[in-house]
Amino acid sequence: MLEKVDLSKKLEKEEYKKRKEELETSLSGLQRKLREKKVPVMIVFEGLGSAGKGEVINKLILPLDPRGFEVFTTGKETQEEEMHPFLWRFWTKTPERGRIAIYDRSWYRKVLLDRYDGLTPQKEMEASYEEINSFEKMLADDGMLIIKFFLYISKKEQKKRIRELLGNRETKWRVSKGDLDRNRHYEEFLRLHDMMLQKTDTSYAPWTIVEAEQKKYAVIKVMSIVEKCFQDKLTEIENAPALVKDGKFSEGTYVTSTLKNVDLSKALSRREYEEKLELLQKKLSRLHNELYTKRIPVILAFEGWDAGGKGGAIKRLTGALDPRGYTVNPTAAPNDIEKVHHYLWRFWTKVPKDGHVAVFDRTWYGRVMVERIEGFCASRDWERAYKEMNDMEKQFSNHGAVVLKFWMQIDKEEQERRFTERQNTPDKTWKITDEDWRNREKWDLYEQAVDEMLIRTSTTYAPWVIVEGNNKYYARIKVLETVIDAIEKRLGKKSV
Amino acid sequence: MLEKVDLSKKLEKEEYKKRKEELETSLSGLQRKLREKKVPVMIVFEGLGSAGKGEVINKLILPLDPRGFEVFTTGKETQEEEMHPFLWRFWTKTPERGRIAIYDRSWYRKVLLDRYDGLTPQKEMEASYEEINSFEKMLADDGMLIIKFFLYISKKEQKKRIRELLGNRETKWRVSKGDLDRNRHYEEFLRLHDMMLQKTDTSYAPWTIVEAEQKKYAVIKVMSIVEKCFQDKLTEIENAPALVKDGKFSEGTYVTSTLKNVDLSKALSRREYEEKLELLQKKLSRLHNELYTKRIPVILAFEGWDAGGKGGAIKRLTGALDPRGYTVNPTAAPNDIEKVHHYLWRFWTKVPKDGHVAVFDRTWYGRVMVERIEGFCASRDWERAYKEMNDMEKQFSNHGAVVLKFWMQIDKEEQERRFTERQNTPDKTWKITDEDWRNREKWDLYEQAVDEMLIRTSTTYAPWVIVEGNNKYYARIKVLETVIDAIEKRLGKKSV
Repeated sequence: MLEKVDLSKKLEKEEYKKRKEELETSLSGLQRKLREKKVPVMIVFEGLGSAGKGEVINKLILPLDPRGFEVFTTGKETQEEEMHPFLWRFWTKTPERGRIAIYDRSWYRKVLLDRYDGLTPQKEMEASYEEINSFEKMLADDGMLIIKFFLYISKKEQKKRIRELLGNRETKWRVSKGDLDRNRHYEEFLRLHDMMLQKTDTSYAPWTIVEAEQKKYAVIKVMSIVEKCFQDKLTEIENAPALVKDGKFSEGTYVTSTLKNVDLSKALSRREYEEKLELLQKKLSRLHNELYTKRIPVILAFEGWDAGGKGGAIKRLTGALDPRGYTVNPTAAPNDIEKVHHYLWRFWTKVPKDGHVAVFDRTWYGRVMVERIEGFCASRDWERAYKEMNDMEKQFSNHGAVVLKFWMQIDKEEQERRFTERQNTPDKTWKITDEDWRNREKWDLYEQAVDEMLIRTSTTYAPWVIVEGNNKYYARIKVLETVIDAIEKRLGKKSV
Repeated sequence: MLEKVDLSKKLEKEEYKKRKEELETSLSGLQRKLREKKVPVMIVFEGLGSAGKGEVINKLILPLDPRGFEVFTTGKETQEEEMHPFLWRFWTKTPERGRIAIYDRSWYRKVLLDRYDGLTPQKEMEASYEEINSFEKMLADDGMLIIKFFLYISKKEQKKRIRELLGNRETKWRVSKGDLDRNRHYEEFLRLHDMMLQKTDTSYAPWTIVEAEQKKYAVIKVMSIVEKCFQDKLTEIENAPALVKDGKFSEGTYVTSTLKNVDLSKALSRREYEEKLELLQKKLSRLHNELYTKRIPVILAFEGWDAGGKGGAIKRLTGALDPRGYTVNPTAAPNDIEKVHHYLWRFWTKVPKDGHVAVFDRTWYGRVMVERIEGFCASRDWERAYKEMNDMEKQFSNHGAVVLKFWMQIDKEEQERRFTERQNTPDKTWKITDEDWRNREKWDLYEQAVDEMLIRTSTTYAPWVIVEGNNKYYARIKVLETVIDAIEKRLGKKSV
């Protein structure tokens, strides 16, 4: 895409001043409107070394209200970042609705500088591009305005700028050996960029190539494009159609019925349970150490009916773990901060680092259960969510994580028994609310939503395990055994 | 995704009869409505051998008006099909708006049966999946309703059905060695299917898994789902928001200006031209033979200003070619048949087979030029089109084609000179119409649209070549030289 770009573009000083003033007034007003409309914005700056990203960013933010934006500089991955899936450090930096995030280099570093330096192996390149496109699409579908700039200068101009920096004692330190090397291999480095532009120029997150040979021109072009994108987004919102919130449930026989067929008679005696529990917890404890040493992260997601026994199973699991090596993340209705982010954001912030175990008590699957059923999101949102959640788990798995998802299954009668017992046992009353009874009335809808979820999101890299839960002893042992089995396979102790 | 499916589902005879009758009445009415609303529908049947695809399809089509649908059976690729990009045979079979196409096996054959049989190499699998997802997305975005069924039976049931067929003299021939082999390796073959389901279950073209252990159940489930999808699509259309038709043009300085910077002073004298022409045509003629022998297809796309010299350049090019080995495809406003298909359909039908050259005089790029400027399509349609066209050309290139795109550039003064000359030369008058003069008034908009197009769709696999066209001699020679150069590189005669 770069071949057709004309680098000779220039602006006269007068014109520059005039346009800059106009744009500053305009951008300042538009930022206010975007904030009112709660539009989140991401502005990405990529470009060749010495193309002037820093200066352009400085000029762009000048007219903006500093309480409404943040600038992130993307360097090499820190040790902490290396120990998480590649996009973790960017998910945690996505802006809230109404705020602007500006990235001086971004997730594209992975396929540009880090590839050039050999930090990203060639065999990871395809997956990285897939992850990037999926990341941007998820955010755009959620209302994020994504603006991407590529600042382009010629080999000659780059060399000139490097020399100028080197010639000045105060700026000399800013030039690295890498800068000189990349100037020598300009063409090769440029090809990496062209490939990147081809693979990631999409209608939901298009690239703008900025002719940066003259800095004045680059500044005004960037400001003009930002102005236009802001305006277009506001128009788009004004014309947006009303959202359809339809759970699209089918009637009767022809829906999947995985849950109805679970054999809930499976049971263990108390003695069998206690014997097995002790053995399995010891084993898991040893494996936990090994996971830590080998830096393998584990993600365990728990879903199930209210009173299905999630809590009890999690307790028996974590009872075997070193508390420094795991976290349990309960998931309630999203709080105010979580509400102003993408629905997956709050889970990304809790992705375990390498060697650690993260347990989720309720999960991202709320999107296709309660949110679908109660109409908390539009039809298109939950319909899209299966793929989005599969993509996220794929990324965890690409990074090397063990990912397991448990569905704690009980039948309606057992639930009633447990609800009643909770109500009648003083120190368990807190566990049961009116909402639990209300949800129970929607049992059939939940069953249908869960059946569809189990089919569409059971993948080789992140399978669902249905736990027969009417007998708590059986359920807890099954969870422990399944976790141990998956870890042993991952550690190569068992054939897959 | 298959692991969670319960194959024990059954229907009683009475229930089956009753539901079937209801569904037949309903489907017949819905087909009529879809026809009125001009909705095109694709229904895909995949599944394990002996799962009963044929029977289910027969039951499904019974209530449908036979003038409104077609059934396609997808066997191994014919020789003709092998000589085209993988999806060519399916593009040419996409239904018109208002019609239904039913596929007994489909494009998924490539990643299932053909992969199992080793016809699709492992290294092509990723690209095939990308091509499939891109294909379905393009069609869905264009309004196509896509329904996909996977018919699932157990190993035991499959074996039983094969035995029954073998035991009967009349049906024995229907069982192949492959059927028996795939039953023996059932688990392995199933894994291929599960992978396929995971990679292609999208919100725009989701899969429905059909429990086909009992045929009655399978028939009713398929008919029910089709009914529901038809109804949902009709509701969707009723609630569809009005389309925004905005060309989104920017003002002035900060748009790309590739065209403005083309050096139009480049020229050749008549003598130089004639000498070069003779030499180059001879060379091209020889290369054409070699392309034919090596079965390499070539796609040459011509765009440019009215009177930019496309015709003349094409003439000098084809003058060197064996008429049995090339076609020239002029592109005018779409005709009635073309209008009821996806805008890329008419170009897919003209993809050259291996060893042949296809020249396009005007192309698919009309979408982002005239259609954008005149508001013939919605904003989201032309915005999405850059990626769609890149994807299509990538598929041509994946198949081994040489793809080149020429933009014939002249300036506004030269155009006026040529227009006037045409008007004043009796046997050229036909070449100039009122519309040409009207388009000329929109020169600036066209220039902006073309500049954006050149940037966004210049790719490594299908580059744009800007031809300086004020001097016809120069232009024609440049086209010939570029084509020869690309072919020589493709044949390995020149380093890339």
